[in-house]
Amino acid sequence: MARLHPDRYLSPVPSVREAARVVYDHTRALPLVCPHGHVPPGLLADDAPFSEPTSLLITPDHYLLRMLYSQGVSLEMLGLSGAEADPREVWQLFADRYDLFLGTPSRAWLEYEFVEILGVDTPLTGDTAGEVYDLISRRLREPDFRPHALFKRFGIEVLTTTDAATDDLSDHARLQEDGFRVLPCFRPDALFAIAAPGWPRQLELLAGKTRSELRTFPAFLQALEERRAHFAAHGATATDHGVEVPLTHRLSDTEAAQIFQRALRGEASSVDESRFQAHMLVEMARMSCDDGLVMQLHAGSLRNHNRALFDRFGPDIGADIPVAAEFTRNLRELLTAYGNHPRFRLVLFTLDESTYTRELAPLAGHYPAVRLGPPWWFLDSIEGMARYRRAVTETAGIFNTAGFNDDTRAFLSIPARHDLARRMDANYLGELVARHELTLEQA
Amino acid sequence: MARLHPDRYLSPVPSVREAARVVYDHTRALPLVCPHGHVPPGLLADDAPFSEPTSLLITPDHYLLRMLYSQGVSLEMLGLSGAEADPREVWQLFADRYDLFLGTPSRAWLEYEFVEILGVDTPLTGDTAGEVYDLISRRLREPDFRPHALFKRFGIEVLTTTDAATDDLSDHARLQEDGFRVLPCFRPDALFAIAAPGWPRQLELLAGKTRSELRTFPAFLQALEERRAHFAAHGATATDHGVEVPLTHRLSDTEAAQIFQRALRGEASSVDESRFQAHMLVEMARMSCDDGLVMQLHAGSLRNHNRALFDRFGPDIGADIPVAAEFTRNLRELLTAYGNHPRFRLVLFTLDESTYTRELAPLAGHYPAVRLGPPWWFLDSIEGMARYRRAVTETAGIFNTAGFNDDTRAFLSIPARHDLARRMDANYLGELVARHELTLEQA
Amino acid sequence: MARLHPDRYLSPVPSVREAARVVYDHTRALPLVCPHGHVPPGLLADDAPFSEPTSLLITPDHYLLRMLYSQGVSLEMLGLSGAEADPREVWQLFADRYDLFLGTPSRAWLEYEFVEILGVDTPLTGDTAGEVYDLISRRLREPDFRPHALFKRFGIEVLTTTDAATDDLSDHARLQEDGFRVLPCFRPDALFAIAAPGWPRQLELLAGKTRSELRTFPAFLQALEERRAHFAAHGATATDHGVEVPLTHRLSDTEAAQIFQRALRGEASSVDESRFQAHMLVEMARMSCDDGLVMQLHAGSLRNHNRALFDRFGPDIGADIPVAAEFTRNLRELLTAYGNHPRFRLVLFTLDESTYTRELAPLAGHYPAVRLGPPWWFLDSIEGMARYRRAVTETAGIFNTAGFNDDTRAFLSIPARHDLARRMDANYLGELVARHELTLEQA
Repeated sequence: MARLHPDRYLSPVPSVREAARVVYDHTRALPLVCPHGHVPPGLLADDAPFSEPTSLLITPDHYLLRMLYSQGVSLEMLGLSGAEADPREVWQLFADRYDLFLGTPSRAWLEYEFVEILGVDTPLTGDTAGEVYDLISRRLREPDFRPHALFKRFGIEVLTTTDAATDDLSDHARLQEDGFRVLPCFRPDALFAIAAPGWPRQLELLAGKTRSELRTFPAFLQALEERRAHFAAHGATATDHGVEVPLTHRLSDTEAAQIFQRALRGEASSVDESRFQAHMLVEMARMSCDDGLVMQLHAGSLRNHNRALFDRFGPDIGADIPVAAEFTRNLRELLTAYGNHPRFRLVLFTLDESTYTRELAPLAGHYPAVRLGPPWWFLDSIEGMARYRRAVTETAGIFNTAGFNDDTRAFLSIPARHDLARRMDANYLGELVARHELTLEQA
Repeated sequence: MARLHPDRYLSPVPSVREAARVVYDHTRALPLVCPHGHVPPGLLADDAPFSEPTSLLITPDHYLLRMLYSQGVSLEMLGLSGAEADPREVWQLFADRYDLFLGTPSRAWLEYEFVEILGVDTPLTGDTAGEVYDLISRRLREPDFRPHALFKRFGIEVLTTTDAATDDLSDHARLQEDGFRVLPCFRPDALFAIAAPGWPRQLELLAGKTRSELRTFPAFLQALEERRAHFAAHGATATDHGVEVPLTHRLSDTEAAQIFQRALRGEASSVDESRFQAHMLVEMARMSCDDGLVMQLHAGSLRNHNRALFDRFGPDIGADIPVAAEFTRNLRELLTAYGNHPRFRLVLFTLDESTYTRELAPLAGHYPAVRLGPPWWFLDSIEGMARYRRAVTETAGIFNTAGFNDDTRAFLSIPARHDLARRMDANYLGELVARHELTLEQA
Repeated sequence: MARLHPDRYLSPVPSVREAARVVYDHTRALPLVCPHGHVPPGLLADDAPFSEPTSLLITPDHYLLRMLYSQGVSLEMLGLSGAEADPREVWQLFADRYDLFLGTPSRAWLEYEFVEILGVDTPLTGDTAGEVYDLISRRLREPDFRPHALFKRFGIEVLTTTDAATDDLSDHARLQEDGFRVLPCFRPDALFAIAAPGWPRQLELLAGKTRSELRTFPAFLQALEERRAHFAAHGATATDHGVEVPLTHRLSDTEAAQIFQRALRGEASSVDESRFQAHMLVEMARMSCDDGLVMQLHAGSLRNHNRALFDRFGPDIGADIPVAAEFTRNLRELLTAYGNHPRFRLVLFTLDESTYTRELAPLAGHYPAVRLGPPWWFLDSIEGMARYRRAVTETAGIFNTAGFNDDTRAFLSIPARHDLARRMDANYLGELVARHELTLEQA
C-alpha cells in the first residue's frame, strides 16, 4: 500500500490502457467541481480538527456500516445511536474485516485516502490496526489536516451541500465570507411528505422562516418560492428531490387545495401524499423555469426497508433498498409541460440500470431540458461507471450527461471518488480510441 | 477521414481482433439482404437524382434530429414541417455540432457514407462544412449516384420496405419490372387503432381496396386476408406490427363483433382498442400459419411522448420513448395456440434489454416458431450489438436469431449499417475463438 | 476434441488470462461441494450401470431438449413420454444438430464430459455419431463408470439432492451407510399449492408420513416441522422453495385457518393460494431460525408456459419461461421479521438479471441473513457468470455470495459445471488483479 499502482483501475487491454493513461493524465490534476454532495457545511465552517479515525472514516460511512452489518457485526458494536464503543476497538473490528471490501469501491476510496491523503505507509490489516490508527490520529492533529487546509489541498473549486428547504444557510454564509465556494442546494422533500408524522413541524419551520401563516396552498407555494430565492441569494444553483416513484402529475387547483387542507387537519392519506408529491414536482419544474435552479431528481429508493432496525436506530443506517423505476410514463406530464423550455434543466438519477438504455438515454437524447446524472450510490463503482458510459453514450451522446458528482458525506473521500471517476471515464474514451472510433485528440 | 481505419470497431484485444478480422473478411463483401426497412419505394422506383446533401442525409434522419434538438436546436431552424430554411445553413449548423455525435452509431454510419459511398476526403467540421456540402452536391448529380445505380453498387440482393395494408404497391411493381427485388411488407397497425381519430378513414381505404362494405368483423377479417394475399402476390414475405404492449388474447366471437360495432359507431374506448389489438395479433398469427408470411413484432415504444412537440409537428420527430416490455405472459396465448406450428415464424424485437436473457432468449430457445430480431433502434449500435449477442446466444443459440436488418429510412446508410453489424458479429465470434469455444473454421 | 484447450473459457486479455490461470490452477483440483442439485438419489444408491448414451446424456437434459425442439425436432422423435424411439437414432439426430449448441454452455459441458470423463477422442459430428455412441456404450459397461466409482473419481465431497417433503429418504440412508455424503433437501412446494388438483394427494402423503389427521392449519404446520426434523436427521442442511412471485406476507391466524379450511374443501382460489404461499414462506423462515436449515428461494419462473405441450407431455419439458422478478417489496415482511436473526440464512436465486444490482446485491449487502445464490439456470453460463460477478460484487462483496451449485439432474455434468464455474471465477479475480485492485495473493 506504500504506493498505489499508477495504472490502478485502468483497463487491462494494452491499447486501451495506453490511451486511457493519456486521457487520465490530462484530467487528473484539474480542479474538483462537486455539484451534489452531503458534507455537513458546519464541519467545514467550524474548521475544527477531526477528532480521531473511527468517527472520521467509519461511523459516518453507510457503505462500510452496511457491509459490516451484513456479516454479523451489530450496530451497537460499532457504537451507533449512542451505544458506548471505544473507537480504537471499532477500528480494530473494522481492520479485522477489511477483506470484506475486496472488489468494492469502498476499498478503492479508502486506499486512496490512506495513501494519498493521510500518508499511511502501512497496509491496513488486523495486525496493523493499532499502528495505523495512531498514525492517522497524529496526522489529524496537524494543521494541514483541518477542513480548510484539506479543502484547498484537494483543489476543490466549488462544493455543493444538500440542505433542508428551511435551513438558514448561516454556515454557507460564513464559508463564503472565508472565501470558500460552498453552495447550498434546496431539498424540500420533507415539506412534501404530508402524511408523515413530522410534517406539521416542517410546515411550522417553513412558516417561521417566511413569517407567513401557510393556511392555504397558494401561500405554501409562495413560501417555497421565497425559500428558493433565499437559497439562490446564497449561491445555490440547484434543487434536489428524492422520491420512491418519480410520478409527475398536475392537479387541478381545487384538488391541490383540498389535499393541502386535509394535510393541515392531519388527515392526508398516503394516496394524497403521492398525488401531492407528483404535483409538487411539476410545480418545482415551473419554478425552475423562472429562477433557473437546476432540478435534480433521485428516484427509486425504498427507504428504511428493515423496519426492525429503523425502529431502533432511525433512518440512514443502510437499509434503503432500490426498486424498479419507471421514467417514461411518470415524467411525461412534467416534460410535456417544461421539457422544451430553454431555461430548464432536469438531471435524472437512477438505481435501476435497466432504465439506462430503455428510458433515460432516449429521454436525454430528445428533450432539451434533460441531462443524465452520473451513476448513483451503489452504481458509483468501477463496473457501474463502465456500464453507464457503455449504455447511455450511444443514444444520449457525451454532452447530455452531467459531470461526475461525489454525492458523499465523507469529506476525505471526495478526491478519491473524483480520481476513480476520472480513471473510468479515461477507460471509456480509451476504448473508443483503441476501436478507432475517436482519435486521441478528440478524446 | 480520408481513409477509414480498416480495424475500426473491432475489439482492442489482440487475439480477438485477429480472429474477428478473419471472420469479417469472409463476410464483408457478401450481398446485402435487407428483410426490414423503411426506404420509401417511390424514391427507388422514380430513380430521380437526390437533390442536395441536407435533404438526403439530415432532415429524414430522426437519430440526427433528436440529438440536435436535445442540445437546443429547434426544429424550425432545421427546416422541418414547412419552416423555411436554407439547406446550406442547416448543413453548417449540423457540421458545427458534429462533435455531438462522438461515440454514437450515427457518426459511425455517416463516416462510412462520406468516405466509402460519397468519396469525401475532407473531414467534416464547422470550417469545412461548405466545401463538403459542395462536394457531395456534385456527386449527387452524377449518374452513378442515382438510386438504381447505388442499389446495384451496394450489392443489395433484396430490400424490403414497410407499407400500409392499404397501399397499392404500384412502386414495387415498377421496381420488380425493372429487375430490382424490392418487396413490400404488410403493416396493418393503423387498421387496428380503432379508437384513433383517423380509423374511419383507414377503414374506408381498406373498403375501397377490397371493394367490400366492411360492416361486420368477419368482413373486416376477410378484407385483411385479401390484402395479405395481394402483398404476397407482390413478393411480400412478412408482416410487421408495432405495439406499445405486446398483449395477445383471443376474444370470443361475440365480444370481437361488439367491439367492432362500437368502433364503427365511433364509440370504441382505449380499453376496447387494447383488447382489439390483442385479438388481432392472434388473428395475424393464425393467418400467417395459412399464408406463410413471417410475423414481425416490434414492442415497447411509447409514441409521441412529447405532446407539446407532437401538437406542432406531428409524429416521427423523435419523441418516441421506450417503456418496460413484458413478453412471457403477454405472448402466452398466441404461442400456446400457434407457437408449435411448423409453418409459423414470429420474429420479436425489443427496446428493453432486460428482456433479452429473461424472456426473449428462453422463448426463442423453446418455441419452434420464435426467432429473435436483431437489436432494434437505440440498441442497433456498437455496444448494443455486443450486449445482444452476449445476452441471447447462450440460451437461444445462434440459429434462433434472425439475421441483421437495417430498419432505416436512410437509403445511403444501408451498407454502412450492414458493415458495422458484420464487424460486431465478427467481434463476437472472434471472442469465442479467442476463448477457445469455437475454432476459426466453425466461426 | 482429442484434448480440450487448457486455457478454454479464460479471458483473451493476456494479463487477465495469466492471473486467471494461476487462480484456476489453485482451485481446479479442490473437492466438489454440491449444495443444490437434482440428481435422483436412487440412481446413486442402486449403483447400476448406465444403460446407453442417449438416456444418460440427452433425454434427461432439458437444455438439450429445448434447443432441439426450438429447431423443429418433435419430442416424439426424441422418444419422450413413452414414444418409441431407437436411442441410436436419437443420438444420430442429436449429432446431426450438434452445431446448434455452438456458443452455449451445454456444448462446453458436453465437451468436458466426452473428453475428460468418457475419454472420447473423436469429435462428435453427424458422421462420427455411431462411432462415438459405441465408444461411450462400451465405457458405460466398465466398472469404473458406475455411479459409485464416478462419485469418487469426481472428488465429490458432498452432494445435495432435492426431495419432496413427503419423501422417505431411504435412498439417502442407503448411500450414507455406504459412506457417501449425499444429503436430502426439503422442498415442500407441492404442499403449498392448495389450488392445484394434486394437492389433496400431497396432503394425504404428508398425513401418512406423520401419522396425523391434518384437519387444522396448526396440525399442518406441526407436520411440516416433523418432516423438517426428519430431513435434518438424514443430514439435510437446507430447504428449497420455487415460486413465480416471491411475495412474503404474514396472515392473521384466523385468515390462515380459513384459507386452509377452504383448501380442505377443495374451494381454494388462486388468490387463496398466493396468500397461503406468501404466508408459508414466512413460516418456513421462522422454522429455519429454529432448526437452522438454510432457506433457498428460487423465484421468477413461469412454469409450463406452452400449455399445448404441457397437455400432451406434462411438466419439465422445457417450457418454463422467466418473468420479471421483484424482491425488495416482496421480501420486506419476511426480512423485517427474520432478516436480522443470527441463525437464519436465506439464499436468493433469480432469472431476472436486472435485479442483480437493483435489489439482490443491496439486500445481501445489508441483511445478515441474506446470501446470493450463484447464477441460476439460463444464467449459469460463461457470459452469465461473468455478468453476475461484475454486477453483484461491488455492492454485496465476495463474502455475501454463496458458492457455486450445479443445480443439475445430469450426474456426468457435475464436474464439467464446476470446472467452468471455477474458470469464470478465476477470470473475474484475474481481472481484478490485472486492474491492480487485488494482488495475486489476495485473489
